[in-house]
Amino acid sequence: MSGRLIGIGVGPGDPELITLKAIRSLEGADVVAYFAKAGNRSVARRIVAVHLRPGIEELPLLYPVTTEIPRHDPGYRAALRDFYDAAAQAVAAHLDAGRTVAAVSEGDPLFYGSYMHLHARLAFRYPTEIVPGVTGMSGCWSAVAMPIAQGDDVLAVLPGTLSEAELERRLAEADAAVVMKLGRNLPKVRRVLACTGRLDRAIYVERGTMADARMLPLAQKPDDDAPYFSIVLVPGWEEQP
Amino acid sequence: MSGRLIGIGVGPGDPELITLKAIRSLEGADVVAYFAKAGNRSVARRIVAVHLRPGIEELPLLYPVTTEIPRHDPGYRAALRDFYDAAAQAVAAHLDAGRTVAAVSEGDPLFYGSYMHLHARLAFRYPTEIVPGVTGMSGCWSAVAMPIAQGDDVLAVLPGTLSEAELERRLAEADAAVVMKLGRNLPKVRRVLACTGRLDRAIYVERGTMADARMLPLAQKPDDDAPYFSIVLVPGWEEQP
Repeated sequence: MSGRLIGIGVGPGDPELITLKAIRSLEGADVVAYFAKAGNRSVARRIVAVHLRPGIEELPLLYPVTTEIPRHDPGYRAALRDFYDAAAQAVAAHLDAGRTVAAVSEGDPLFYGSYMHLHARLAFRYPTEIVPGVTGMSGCWSAVAMPIAQGDDVLAVLPGTLSEAELERRLAEADAAVVMKLGRNLPKVRRVLACTGRLDRAIYVERGTMADARMLPLAQKPDDDAPYFSIVLVPGWEEQP
Repeated sequence: MSGRLIGIGVGPGDPELITLKAIRSLEGADVVAYFAKAGNRSVARRIVAVHLRPGIEELPLLYPVTTEIPRHDPGYRAALRDFYDAAAQAVAAHLDAGRTVAAVSEGDPLFYGSYMHLHARLAFRYPTEIVPGVTGMSGCWSAVAMPIAQGDDVLAVLPGTLSEAELERRLAEADAAVVMKLGRNLPKVRRVLACTGRLDRAIYVERGTMADARMLPLAQKPDDDAPYFSIVLVPGWEEQP
């Protein structure tokens, strides 16, 4: 009898934004797996720390260092594919031994999460369950108490990695938008927002629900430094009473 | 000293998908407020039932029956505006008396939630806090275990109430999409998906994470009956390994 794979969303950062279902699922797990960059601590691992039963087996899945390979190089994709294959094999070894593996993800596991790479490789072979989580973007717009979309609003979720032309076209059309994966894309995102007339409404949020969160109107942010997981929110609902 | 308003997301339906923070916030509240249609039970109220302390004051905010007024009639908007004004006044009376009011919403309060109408009227006058929740759409794609968006995917959240031309234009452009507010818009949504070549990928989900959930490929759904809060998911991540 093979074990079960559970993809668990643990929320955006604040350890209290974990669900009862995530906690219960963790309590029944034999192994907790999580992605992290080599040398970095996993945020998901930190969030669930107090809920792990003593003696639970840990399976860190450590990204290879790929910063020396340009992102659009086929070598980059190949290195990542090999890494995800090996990660899935490591998880599968536990499942084959009949163990329940809880793979914990920041935010929601099926919304731009690394867990999806395990899921695509394993869900057709093993019993699998998903526990949704509060997304990073929900955490961010709640931290600034900013209604994001209402009524007939169209909300666009846009990776900051898109080209300037693409971002401009899509931002011009959306009523509300969330731009993720800022990092060094921030100057580009700022230009596009200015040029689509949205800069005055845009809010910059860094480490959304964490103790050291930073949030301010993007127009007032004096520099273009931004961690990769910071986001920009452009609220919709312009006809609000 | 005025009381505090807390907008609390209680998740998509499964009572276990509530967060620790929502529970703790409810425990400290003097009043629990929730929107409901007259004659219907509030889903949010049902989700939090076991977490309410005995004797907590309840403030149901009951929508006026508006089905006899066409949705784009100015009379419809006026009736709703008056209702939200009155609801905000009822909440304000408690806040003025120094009571903490927990306004509970299904899903996430600032993501297409009715709570936003209270927030817009009260947040500038009273101390306010938002507790984000797992959205209905996260609940739905997790129930069907379907990765929704990854990498450079653009995700569009589209109300089914948009015109056929609008829906078509926006669906044609998105890598991944969530179409909400189906109800009688389902035949239109189905036509648009067929015409943008997305019908084969689309999944229909009704009552996402609840015990009586119903989910199937939209192409296999034999009828066009759909409750208002059902949704259609169109997954992105087409290059997944």
